Amino acid sequence: MKKILVVNGPNLNMLGIREPGVYGRENYQTLCDMIKEKADEIGAEVAFFQSNSEGELIDALQRAYSEYDGVIINPGAYTHYSYALHDAIKAIGLPVIEVHISNIHTREEFRHKSVTAPACRGQICGLGLYGYILALEALING
Amino acid sequence: MKKILVVNGPNLNMLGIREPGVYGRENYQTLCDMIKEKADEIGAEVAFFQSNSEGELIDALQRAYSEYDGVIINPGAYTHYSYALHDAIKAIGLPVIEVHISNIHTREEFRHKSVTAPACRGQICGLGLYGYILALEALING
Amino acid sequence: MKKILVVNGPNLNMLGIREPGVYGRENYQTLCDMIKEKADEIGAEVAFFQSNSEGELIDALQRAYSEYDGVIINPGAYTHYSYALHDAIKAIGLPVIEVHISNIHTREEFRHKSVTAPACRGQICGLGLYGYILALEALING
Amino acid sequence: MKKILVVNGPNLNMLGIREPGVYGRENYQTLCDMIKEKADEIGAEVAFFQSNSEGELIDALQRAYSEYDGVIINPGAYTHYSYALHDAIKAIGLPVIEVHISNIHTREEFRHKSVTAPACRGQICGLGLYGYILALEALING
Amino acid sequence: MKKILVVNGPNLNMLGIREPGVYGRENYQTLCDMIKEKADEIGAEVAFFQSNSEGELIDALQRAYSEYDGVIINPGAYTHYSYALHDAIKAIGLPVIEVHISNIHTREEFRHKSVTAPACRGQICGLGLYGYILALEALING
Amino acid sequence: MKKILVVNGPNLNMLGIREPGVYGRENYQTLCDMIKEKADEIGAEVAFFQSNSEGELIDALQRAYSEYDGVIINPGAYTHYSYALHDAIKAIGLPVIEVHISNIHTREEFRHKSVTAPACRGQICGLGLYGYILALEALING
Amino acid sequence: MKKILVVNGPNLNMLGIREPGVYGRENYQTLCDMIKEKADEIGAEVAFFQSNSEGELIDALQRAYSEYDGVIINPGAYTHYSYALHDAIKAIGLPVIEVHISNIHTREEFRHKSVTAPACRGQICGLGLYGYILALEALING
Amino acid sequence: MKKILVVNGPNLNMLGIREPGVYGRENYQTLCDMIKEKADEIGAEVAFFQSNSEGELIDALQRAYSEYDGVIINPGAYTHYSYALHDAIKAIGLPVIEVHISNIHTREEFRHKSVTAPACRGQICGLGLYGYILALEALING
Amino acid sequence: MKKILVVNGPNLNMLGIREPGVYGRENYQTLCDMIKEKADEIGAEVAFFQSNSEGELIDALQRAYSEYDGVIINPGAYTHYSYALHDAIKAIGLPVIEVHISNIHTREEFRHKSVTAPACRGQICGLGLYGYILALEALING
Amino acid sequence: MKKILVVNGPNLNMLGIREPGVYGRENYQTLCDMIKEKADEIGAEVAFFQSNSEGELIDALQRAYSEYDGVIINPGAYTHYSYALHDAIKAIGLPVIEVHISNIHTREEFRHKSVTAPACRGQICGLGLYGYILALEALING
Amino acid sequence: MKKILVVNGPNLNMLGIREPGVYGRENYQTLCDMIKEKADEIGAEVAFFQSNSEGELIDALQRAYSEYDGVIINPGAYTHYSYALHDAIKAIGLPVIEVHISNIHTREEFRHKSVTAPACRGQICGLGLYGYILALEALING
Amino acid sequence: MKKILVVNGPNLNMLGIREPGVYGRENYQTLCDMIKEKADEIGAEVAFFQSNSEGELIDALQRAYSEYDGVIINPGAYTHYSYALHDAIKAIGLPVIEVHISNIHTREEFRHKSVTAPACRGQICGLGLYGYILALEALING
Repeated sequence: MKKILVVNGPNLNMLGIREPGVYGRENYQTLCDMIKEKADEIGAEVAFFQSNSEGELIDALQRAYSEYDGVIINPGAYTHYSYALHDAIKAIGLPVIEVHISNIHTREEFRHKSVTAPACRGQICGLGLYGYILALEALING
Repeated sequence: MKKILVVNGPNLNMLGIREPGVYGRENYQTLCDMIKEKADEIGAEVAFFQSNSEGELIDALQRAYSEYDGVIINPGAYTHYSYALHDAIKAIGLPVIEVHISNIHTREEFRHKSVTAPACRGQICGLGLYGYILALEALING
Repeated sequence: MKKILVVNGPNLNMLGIREPGVYGRENYQTLCDMIKEKADEIGAEVAFFQSNSEGELIDALQRAYSEYDGVIINPGAYTHYSYALHDAIKAIGLPVIEVHISNIHTREEFRHKSVTAPACRGQICGLGLYGYILALEALING
Repeated sequence: MKKILVVNGPNLNMLGIREPGVYGRENYQTLCDMIKEKADEIGAEVAFFQSNSEGELIDALQRAYSEYDGVIINPGAYTHYSYALHDAIKAIGLPVIEVHISNIHTREEFRHKSVTAPACRGQICGLGLYGYILALEALING
Repeated sequence: MKKILVVNGPNLNMLGIREPGVYGRENYQTLCDMIKEKADEIGAEVAFFQSNSEGELIDALQRAYSEYDGVIINPGAYTHYSYALHDAIKAIGLPVIEVHISNIHTREEFRHKSVTAPACRGQICGLGLYGYILALEALING
Repeated sequence: MKKILVVNGPNLNMLGIREPGVYGRENYQTLCDMIKEKADEIGAEVAFFQSNSEGELIDALQRAYSEYDGVIINPGAYTHYSYALHDAIKAIGLPVIEVHISNIHTREEFRHKSVTAPACRGQICGLGLYGYILALEALING
Repeated sequence: MKKILVVNGPNLNMLGIREPGVYGRENYQTLCDMIKEKADEIGAEVAFFQSNSEGELIDALQRAYSEYDGVIINPGAYTHYSYALHDAIKAIGLPVIEVHISNIHTREEFRHKSVTAPACRGQICGLGLYGYILALEALING
Repeated sequence: MKKILVVNGPNLNMLGIREPGVYGRENYQTLCDMIKEKADEIGAEVAFFQSNSEGELIDALQRAYSEYDGVIINPGAYTHYSYALHDAIKAIGLPVIEVHISNIHTREEFRHKSVTAPACRGQICGLGLYGYILALEALING
Repeated sequence: MKKILVVNGPNLNMLGIREPGVYGRENYQTLCDMIKEKADEIGAEVAFFQSNSEGELIDALQRAYSEYDGVIINPGAYTHYSYALHDAIKAIGLPVIEVHISNIHTREEFRHKSVTAPACRGQICGLGLYGYILALEALING
Repeated sequence: MKKILVVNGPNLNMLGIREPGVYGRENYQTLCDMIKEKADEIGAEVAFFQSNSEGELIDALQRAYSEYDGVIINPGAYTHYSYALHDAIKAIGLPVIEVHISNIHTREEFRHKSVTAPACRGQICGLGLYGYILALEALING
Repeated sequence: MKKILVVNGPNLNMLGIREPGVYGRENYQTLCDMIKEKADEIGAEVAFFQSNSEGELIDALQRAYSEYDGVIINPGAYTHYSYALHDAIKAIGLPVIEVHISNIHTREEFRHKSVTAPACRGQICGLGLYGYILALEALING
Repeated sequence: MKKILVVNGPNLNMLGIREPGVYGRENYQTLCDMIKEKADEIGAEVAFFQSNSEGELIDALQRAYSEYDGVIINPGAYTHYSYALHDAIKAIGLPVIEVHISNIHTREEFRHKSVTAPACRGQICGLGLYGYILALEALING
């Protein structure tokens, strides 16, 4: 059974509170439950990690190196400048899929570019929380 | 039953022939078959359109306006400069998901930016032909 | 009696349907009728051509070379990148006036620049459908 | 009867003297007479103001706020950098049409961009002195 | 008793009329009264100057050189391009604080940069009319 | 009684030690004491938080969400690139005022731009430690 | 005997009519005849295709994939933005030489860059119609 | 006897007061006297005009059109953005030489570019007040 | 005996695992041992610190302020955007030498620029693990 | 009989040694022999000059002014920055054709732009050593 | 008696031959004679050096260090990129005045910027050969 | 015994004379002696070459190809634009280490980028003359 780590970056713990017009009204726990349910359905094991700290996100990715078969990551705003996360993703050599809840291309200029995406296998954006579900499917069945 | 139009842009008819290192060895027919099979499975109707012509792609999108419930589009290289396609996607008001087979962020500089994505609901890239399957799911179940 | 060709580019056939907040609620046929009425009033002959295809728009301009005395063109989104249309306008040597229904300077960054305008005699924007009427007057009486 | 103020910016008092290859051989008085004649014909009242001073142009626009129904403005070179004029146009809330005698898109790079146009209803350029006549028509009949 | 000159640039005389959503509904006189009241309270003398003209603003700053102990300036749109004001501020050698009523960083791109701020002691923005009160305090007590 | 959190970012704990020519000779404790004294005077409650870690600063802002009525923040160098802090400020929905001790516009190019300011209510810079006092006043009385 | 396809893009059918100061006075037919004559001389077979449509040019290149041994292409203005043509050239894997009649480096800024050249074997520009002859030689003897 | 107008822009009336480390300790009157003395020596007539107002500088240039044989201009900070001055210089058609007291290339980035110089015959910078003397010689004897 | 702190940033703990083609096959422990051995040889004391967290790296630098005579730092990817590290290096006033194992100038564009280098005494890159040895020599003997 | 000078710039004397994957395995002497043979065949006289020095290349071009009928030049890396060579080519007024062995558009960014090409009649690139042969033909027969 | 070295860069030996529309019809010898005559008149000693080689120009400047009191330099096209000349001018510490015969601001974009001017005392451009005379005066009397 | 060539570029012969605040007070001969002494100590043979001419520096590098085992190069200002030196370094295939005496990242903007570094093995900067010693060690022992 494949083990997938779901990593969420800064402010994703505020889901449902933070700008619901952009990110929706479901909270972080609902997100985890939704993914867990899907994992059970398709026979995968998932674990979750959230942190506002760039360093802790990198630590988590490094631990994943020997413990997981793939990673789903939403690096939050670090997406747009964290070359250190980029390096961590490359360093661990696992398949990593980047997810964004909103369509980053319709928002502020600074959100259009992802510096982590070039280190990932692929990217899904704009499909709401469902994007995580699709990423999970892609890692297990894709 | 929802009707989805799958629109493929320039050179996607060369799938399997064109740079297989980048786009894989499956050809355009296989892609259509894969999507059809999934549509049958989840109870959706799909139709396919491919053209190398920007104008014909716009014509197809406009026809979709009254005939389909959603669109999956891979605009090929038009992704990077066709503001006319952008306008057509916006004009028809349907949910449209953009798909790229390869991870556009790891390739040439000019492929990093999508001018059509801001007119779409979301974007999936780098997950191979499987990206079309995920887009279909998102349109039907997401 | 002077003969004027009115050329409309991509998505202008969607007038009245497409983003009515930006382009108004009159449709393409109304636009043609309005221009025809004005032409009759000031003693000019007008013909109309619309296409979503860059190539067909160039073909139409080239045909105009020997058949018309002037051209009114709204190149739609091609305005912002079609150097091929630019070349066609220059090649035919007729007086050409570029028209935009909306004020392109208050919209997205990419719409601020026209690559076709430098090949035209002049440009009218932001005055709604009335801009075509003014362009006709300018070609006949200006 | 609608009252329109025609505002001309720096160096337009030199019309006929200044670079006649670009701006033509008619002088400023002829321009005013042409517009007056058209105004009489279509039943509008026009007044004229010219100044080389950015501050006086803003003063004139502010006075227009309570005295006129619309403004035709050719901000001369201020077009390209006067954000203060931009603000004044926005502040008065009247319909304002920007006119340029020459086609600004075929001249020096710095003339391609108008910082005042985004505050106006629309813009007419490249149609010579006739552009002012069209702007008047648009304000009265458009 | 310290004497402070409060200099307001273009369109600030339109306060309360101009874009109240951005600048509030209080008018220019109210602003002056508010500042006067605070000055009386903290034992300072204030004078006011408003002009739409860049040259007159520079003249006022130069006069302040021998007559005032400090300047509060809201250069309006000149903030974004008037290097001549920048030079005048530097030339007089007085402490000058720049104030903006709105948060210039949340508005159009062109308002993000101040060319006058590097010549000032400091800058306060986004705190409404209250920003002038704070600037006065800073000059007297800071 | 309003509760205000004063958040200081990286290297502000080095105040008085670090480049005294730029930041002055008062140390971090003096800064806190000055603010406390003012808070007592105007009847506000203040708490202080300093960290060199971007993640801890975000954690602190998130905690402030339910415990404070406003925030004064000096994000130190994170001002210039921390979009994660920007998101945290937006997420909590409290009034936040950004303070910089030095005039960031007279220093290195990279300090001219603040990526956090667009998420704040306003910004005060260049007025030394006194800027914190003014920010406190603005939150309580402004 | 090697078979070479000569592909000409938009407005090259206007040769001799369009801006003769730039492109010379020979027409499109003369160009074809010249190339045909050279082909006969060096024992090659040539065919010709011209279109104003980006899509048709791509179609032609794709057909060439199985029918020709090499391609000479003058993409006209598409040279400067058609990444779709770029992809088509790469997709077919044949040796392709890009030709421009005029020296694109002495003309408008936008003509200096070719987005198709990186997909070609090489490029010849500024040598008039003779450039096609040289390209033919290079494909056959080079 | 040739008549030369010496035009000085904003803040040059502050000469000797303003940043003496950059502009020297001689005042504006001394500058005028120096130039007058040289004019007497080489048999030229000189007049002087200084203003902080862009509009008045343009007015002065326009008056020079019929009254003087040449102009020496130091546009102060307007050098770097006044396209209106650029147009005025071009409009009057007289030989105009631009002078800067300091070496603009060793100062802030914004001072490196002159938008008025392209409208002048030539430019002299960095040679102190003596630059005006050289400009006078160039206009009379050059 | 001089005390030197060797600070390694994000992902350097993955040495030997992470992209061995770029960073070599020696691991982090070997690196520390190599440096220790050299320190012993030249009579210096060395300590080591590694963290993936920007904040902890700043904390470590601040602690070094009173405990060490110099610092060798490889900020990993933080090199390219951590102005907070830049400030910390400047704040502590010790001699700091920046080291990169690979030649950052031959890799991705984003690695070419170091924002921390301007705060350091010097930089050594591209000389493998040996770069640390040279940095140590420079701090002790240079 | 026409006399042609073949000028080769820096490092072309290293042909066959330098990066054979890019420039091929033939050496400089073979190149000269090939060109000489072609010249004999078509009845032209050729001379050769190679230097690593920008100044000597300019000297050679200046000597060519009175002694040759045309020049073939491969400026090597000077292509990308030597405006002095550009000026020399323009100064001598002879027909000059620029040749590059490799396709400069597929290599590093800095090689994409030629500053010498705008001063030449035309440019041939990517066709290997055969490019020189074609340039010779163009000068003699084109 | 002051000794001045007049240094002319690439292609200035072609004066009178090279683009006479830009540089005039006088040749290099005439230029030297003109300067010599002026030097005799004002009691200065002049020597001349011209080279097309950047290295020789630097050598000449370095020799000037101990032998001359000032330098007049026209670096030709090296003006726009030779940072090595910039360094040489700075290294020798003599007063150096840069001269350009034409107005570099009215020519190609690349000529607008001088990288050597920031190392010089001042710059004179656009005043023809007379610019050298003025530079001489400035060095002797300015 | 390994043979190393030490190549110094423009103005390094002025060491000790040129801007001692930046480059120190030791002269070129001292530098050579220091390196020679170190070479003797570690058993290497060194030779020295200095030139102000880009061409001669390339010539020296090419000669090194067959005569030396490695090169230490300080290209002086050529560092920032000499793509020809870049090509020469690549062409010879020897290990080359670039050295700068000062920290190029704390100086003018143009010195921040090295165009030669990507062709070298590595770079050392900011460590004074000692940087050459370290480079020598790296070539011999690294």
